[in-house]
Amino acid sequence: MKLAIDALIEGIERMGNPTAVGLDTQLAHLPEGFAGKVESFADAADALLRYNKALVDALCGIVPCAKVQIAYYEMYGVPGMQAFRETIDYAKAKGMVVIADAKRNDIGATASAYANAYLGETPLGEKADSAFPVDFVTVNAYLGLDGVEPFRKASAVRGGGIFALVKTSNPSGVQLQDLKIGERTVYEVMGDLVSEWGKDCIGEHGYSSIGAVVGATYPEQGAALRQRLPHTFFLVPGYGAQGATGKDLRGCFDAQGRGAVVNASRSILTAWRKQPGVDFAQAAYNEAVRMREDIMEGIRA
Amino acid sequence: MKLAIDALIEGIERMGNPTAVGLDTQLAHLPEGFAGKVESFADAADALLRYNKALVDALCGIVPCAKVQIAYYEMYGVPGMQAFRETIDYAKAKGMVVIADAKRNDIGATASAYANAYLGETPLGEKADSAFPVDFVTVNAYLGLDGVEPFRKASAVRGGGIFALVKTSNPSGVQLQDLKIGERTVYEVMGDLVSEWGKDCIGEHGYSSIGAVVGATYPEQGAALRQRLPHTFFLVPGYGAQGATGKDLRGCFDAQGRGAVVNASRSILTAWRKQPGVDFAQAAYNEAVRMREDIMEGIRA
Repeated sequence: MKLAIDALIEGIERMGNPTAVGLDTQLAHLPEGFAGKVESFADAADALLRYNKALVDALCGIVPCAKVQIAYYEMYGVPGMQAFRETIDYAKAKGMVVIADAKRNDIGATASAYANAYLGETPLGEKADSAFPVDFVTVNAYLGLDGVEPFRKASAVRGGGIFALVKTSNPSGVQLQDLKIGERTVYEVMGDLVSEWGKDCIGEHGYSSIGAVVGATYPEQGAALRQRLPHTFFLVPGYGAQGATGKDLRGCFDAQGRGAVVNASRSILTAWRKQPGVDFAQAAYNEAVRMREDIMEGIRA
Repeated sequence: MKLAIDALIEGIERMGNPTAVGLDTQLAHLPEGFAGKVESFADAADALLRYNKALVDALCGIVPCAKVQIAYYEMYGVPGMQAFRETIDYAKAKGMVVIADAKRNDIGATASAYANAYLGETPLGEKADSAFPVDFVTVNAYLGLDGVEPFRKASAVRGGGIFALVKTSNPSGVQLQDLKIGERTVYEVMGDLVSEWGKDCIGEHGYSSIGAVVGATYPEQGAALRQRLPHTFFLVPGYGAQGATGKDLRGCFDAQGRGAVVNASRSILTAWRKQPGVDFAQAAYNEAVRMREDIMEGIRA
């Protein structure tokens, strides 16, 4: 079975592009008139899904991965969750590696329910079905290994993986994550746990199915974590709208220019705003090309 | 506006019962024949919803609160989410205080999306609607204050609140939570942050809308946290199937016997197994009465 981590690395190599488009789509991101009159959750969900499909069509040839932030679908209730499901199915069908950014976390049987929902299958008598089948799901590991183990187990179903929060991109992440436990920060302790948990599921390119979220907004810490966790692949948010640029990312990659996938959401979703007269999907494509150049230049520097 | 934390405390006083029923309903919990033939997510969701409604009918007169674990609905995809929504609506309509156990967490705009989904309203042009309207949602605060602030803000819409994970009930919670940051453990640091975040939204009974999850399986730590966080209400999982009993809970309550709500899921959902010949809803009622006595005895001891 092909591991999702290997498929992700190969997609990145094939396209020369270690990036993910973040489908954190919101109504405010859509060009005027695109959504039509929105009076219900179903109206909103329909507009988001149409926008996502157009973006996937435009980007699937040059961006290997889509990260879909479930919060923006959950907030539209049941119709929103339907749009989430159709978005991930569409991106998968177009060959993209799909990450559900859900930051799910719980213990024991409950963590198993989440793991089945995203990476495995939910039993139905003698049959089974998949609720929201993706390649990766993000996980918050504050609850320790028994919150992670069910995801590791479920990943055996289709070869999927997880990205556990280690060092997040937001300013107040430091309130807990940067405090010192002996010689190590909390995020280093978390990183070491993630590395340990992932050591038995390393793929053919040297990276584990258990990856880490490491924010681009802290370049020095990212570089130190790259050294510390040689087999842990990084999902790197914070590029673009959150302020990080290509040169901030160098440290998240290994000597071969591998080891991370960088996400950008708003800068791609709303690229049309900075390209007057250009169609939104074409504008997103142009921004994805610019981002690839910026990041590849940063990596080579 | 009535705060949910005050409504919860008053419900507990009125029924003399500081407990919540955990509607972590799974097919395996249902008596044989109840579900009928389950061949799809819709079949499963239909059975769970019917079971939940019967339990709410049986319990709403003696149990003031329902905690609904969303993972067990998410795993049935879109039909599962519909059953989740109908379950919370039904429990609310029957007068119960409803907690969505979702452990959601993210930063900035994304945390706002979750906060709107559970505690606030999602904007729809000039209108707005609520995705999954509950009184409380559980939150994982590993990302720090800017992951919590949006929930605090959204709580102004209907007076809702949150319970942030502090000390979880599972064995490997200790992997991170019990490590020392200077003189304090990670969970004490988290508890202090939660207390600080909640100090401006204390209700009329002295407890804040920002509460904490404190597992019943660590009675000494629970008692120490009760002393440390006098304005922080505790949601206490781990009673029953996870091993804690009434006497383990004493320390989670203050001198007036207030300050916590204790959740039990499996022991109530599957009470019919230990009461042969008794209808499942009646069995759940009987177990809820037994639990109330056990806990009240523990508190008075």
